[in-house]
Amino acid sequence: MKQYIEKNRERFLQELYSLLRIPSVSSMEEHRPDMERCARRLAELLLEAGADTAEVYPTEGHPVVFGERKTDPDLPTVLVYGHYDVQPVDPIELWKSDPFEPEIRDGAIYARGANDDKGQLFMHIKAFEYMVRESGLKHNVKFIFEGEEEIGSPSLAAWAKDHRDMLKADIILVSDTTMISEKVPSINCGMRGLSYVEVKVTGPDKDLHSGHYGGAVANPINVLCDMVSSLIGKDGHITVKGFYDDVVELSEEDRAKLARAPFDLEEYKSFLNIKEVKGEKGYTTLERTGIRPCLDVNGIWGGYTGEGAKTVLPSEAHAKISMRLVPNQDSETITRLFAEHFKSIAPDYVKVEVTPCHGGNGFLIPISSSAYQAASKAMTDVYGVEPVPSRGGGSIPVLADLQRILGIDPLLMGFGLERDTIHSPNESYLLSQLFKGMEAIALFYRYY
Amino acid sequence: MKQYIEKNRERFLQELYSLLRIPSVSSMEEHRPDMERCARRLAELLLEAGADTAEVYPTEGHPVVFGERKTDPDLPTVLVYGHYDVQPVDPIELWKSDPFEPEIRDGAIYARGANDDKGQLFMHIKAFEYMVRESGLKHNVKFIFEGEEEIGSPSLAAWAKDHRDMLKADIILVSDTTMISEKVPSINCGMRGLSYVEVKVTGPDKDLHSGHYGGAVANPINVLCDMVSSLIGKDGHITVKGFYDDVVELSEEDRAKLARAPFDLEEYKSFLNIKEVKGEKGYTTLERTGIRPCLDVNGIWGGYTGEGAKTVLPSEAHAKISMRLVPNQDSETITRLFAEHFKSIAPDYVKVEVTPCHGGNGFLIPISSSAYQAASKAMTDVYGVEPVPSRGGGSIPVLADLQRILGIDPLLMGFGLERDTIHSPNESYLLSQLFKGMEAIALFYRYY
Repeated sequence: MKQYIEKNRERFLQELYSLLRIPSVSSMEEHRPDMERCARRLAELLLEAGADTAEVYPTEGHPVVFGERKTDPDLPTVLVYGHYDVQPVDPIELWKSDPFEPEIRDGAIYARGANDDKGQLFMHIKAFEYMVRESGLKHNVKFIFEGEEEIGSPSLAAWAKDHRDMLKADIILVSDTTMISEKVPSINCGMRGLSYVEVKVTGPDKDLHSGHYGGAVANPINVLCDMVSSLIGKDGHITVKGFYDDVVELSEEDRAKLARAPFDLEEYKSFLNIKEVKGEKGYTTLERTGIRPCLDVNGIWGGYTGEGAKTVLPSEAHAKISMRLVPNQDSETITRLFAEHFKSIAPDYVKVEVTPCHGGNGFLIPISSSAYQAASKAMTDVYGVEPVPSRGGGSIPVLADLQRILGIDPLLMGFGLERDTIHSPNESYLLSQLFKGMEAIALFYRYY
Repeated sequence: MKQYIEKNRERFLQELYSLLRIPSVSSMEEHRPDMERCARRLAELLLEAGADTAEVYPTEGHPVVFGERKTDPDLPTVLVYGHYDVQPVDPIELWKSDPFEPEIRDGAIYARGANDDKGQLFMHIKAFEYMVRESGLKHNVKFIFEGEEEIGSPSLAAWAKDHRDMLKADIILVSDTTMISEKVPSINCGMRGLSYVEVKVTGPDKDLHSGHYGGAVANPINVLCDMVSSLIGKDGHITVKGFYDDVVELSEEDRAKLARAPFDLEEYKSFLNIKEVKGEKGYTTLERTGIRPCLDVNGIWGGYTGEGAKTVLPSEAHAKISMRLVPNQDSETITRLFAEHFKSIAPDYVKVEVTPCHGGNGFLIPISSSAYQAASKAMTDVYGVEPVPSRGGGSIPVLADLQRILGIDPLLMGFGLERDTIHSPNESYLLSQLFKGMEAIALFYRYY
């Protein structure tokens, strides 16, 4: 499809830009109309690319886009999953260009969603268009795009249950992950799950003057720090009771397979500009993000955070805490265990609330599967080397749900790179990856 | 002066309101014009009350108001100190009425600054007016009102040095503190000092996706929590190296004197709505806020604090940390010790910055002094009981500076009450305290 890309390059970019220009931030109420707009635009693009039908379906939350092309009931069916919602853009002041006005710098598109996931789902639409128009599509193809992935897909599972038949397929094909590097393609054969909670620690029922009360009344911020600090032990183990009960230890053999992935710790550290990495004792960096669970504070706030100094002993302190889970750990169970543990360690001079935000389970797919093999051949053709099987640290909880509800394995052919800094200011996506991704996806269909 | 108050009650309130309506928040640049307005209004009020002169003096920061009435060089001179700046009002949503539109509810004025310190400095202006017009003033009186007390008085010390002669006096009289209760008047004979710093912990040089990096890269929020948590030991001792070196242990006798102050722990806890108090082992609650230093986080922030969930492993985490100091601890020394200690405990997977915000030393005045005795008699007349000598937990660092620069003791006749919740939403000041304060101040002049 190289030539096809050359011929249509400019149109492809303009079509992608039309998606990137819509600020579809799913976590913010004010952007609800943008979600609608983005969903409708995707349906248009699907029809233009050759779908028989493409519709926007309302849900409890943001709409789902479903489109398909029926070629022949006897041919295999591919269900392409993607999400059109994006992360918030703050801290906005760190963006070099408007997050919602795409700009090309040094061969990469800079915009929120350039990679995650608008850029990556767009590759599937264009590979599909190519096959329909030029190479004779030999599959039935279905597309499902949701608008709530960044907030834990609260609506899609229910919607999928109601549309089980419509979603019947042989494989779920997804591009929402990264490759190890431009030189080292990889296919993600497992993802971590997620348990995300918000905690609130309350001390006195009003803000106090820290001079009059400091030293005699527990400060909820100090207490929150104590409690958070106690959640991870010296060895990097999470102290929540029962947290590791369902974690499956990998065999030495599997660990060796994953260790095939080339990894340069010095490169990693200099990319992040850190002196040292930190994590669970006894595991490598790749294992710490791939096959081991972890706990992070994603946000913390309390007291006076404005300009200047305010001598306040605040009434409340808050934190958003998430735990990444490995396959076989159940998200709801972990959330319950965390809430129980966090309350159990609260000293009696504060009150503690734990509010579950969202979560989902991890999953694994067999390297032996025909879909994995087809993807492997396709990427070998495009990149000239056989891709490495990897484990993704991130969570796409909804994929575990779809796998459970539809009984189909997801295959993660991701073309993102670390350098893309998704979820951060200046998210970007290399044009070379965008176009190689389209090629690889078209080749996948040839081998599958 | 009871009758005089009766006669002029409504005018007094309107004049006080004219001050309270000006949002003179010293820590926020946007309020700079309000600082000017407030200063000019104070000068007007001083002249109307009977000052020979009253002028607004520019400084590096917010202006200083100085006014005086020269009665007779042979008579004693009283220097009245107050501050017209106020604390920020956030969280604004918790205010029952506009913080800058005073409202009387249940016999109290509700407004930012109603007590701290506009309400309390106003008592001095009106007591002065009464003496000038009705009872024959027998003192030289000087007023100095600054606009930077809530941000650590960065300009006043230098200004006072330049105007040493103009400020010559026998006593510094201040109302910017509380009494133990309406029934138990007290005179503050010592204040804690302050060291206030802002800290910044930096991990990776960009925000990261917590799924891709969580578990392998140190999260600066978790690290900040660890570090903050380590600053206070199990026994409530501050772990900063050398922190207690200059702390003077009080004699059993002095501790007994202070213990005369009636104090009901149950009342205290129910007022704050807390199950338990918390503080340094081996000291009572009053001692913990009066004669012992402490450390509090006044504000903390980092990562995603908006609506919904964002799975970010942030680049930075911040906190505002203040330490209350007791007499003989030097603020600058403590700030230096803190910075050294905080950097020394920083793990090598993060970078740490410590920025001093402001501070000042504590001080003590002898109960035997003639000024203390005059204040004691005056309050006994008004409240019918002899006031208790107390130690203030709050800091008025500038008073320690003025004491040092001018060589005059400050006397703290404060009429605030705990219920006034200064620095918090719904700051208030009881009318009864406002008017009794005026009486007591007029009587102080009679006995001094």
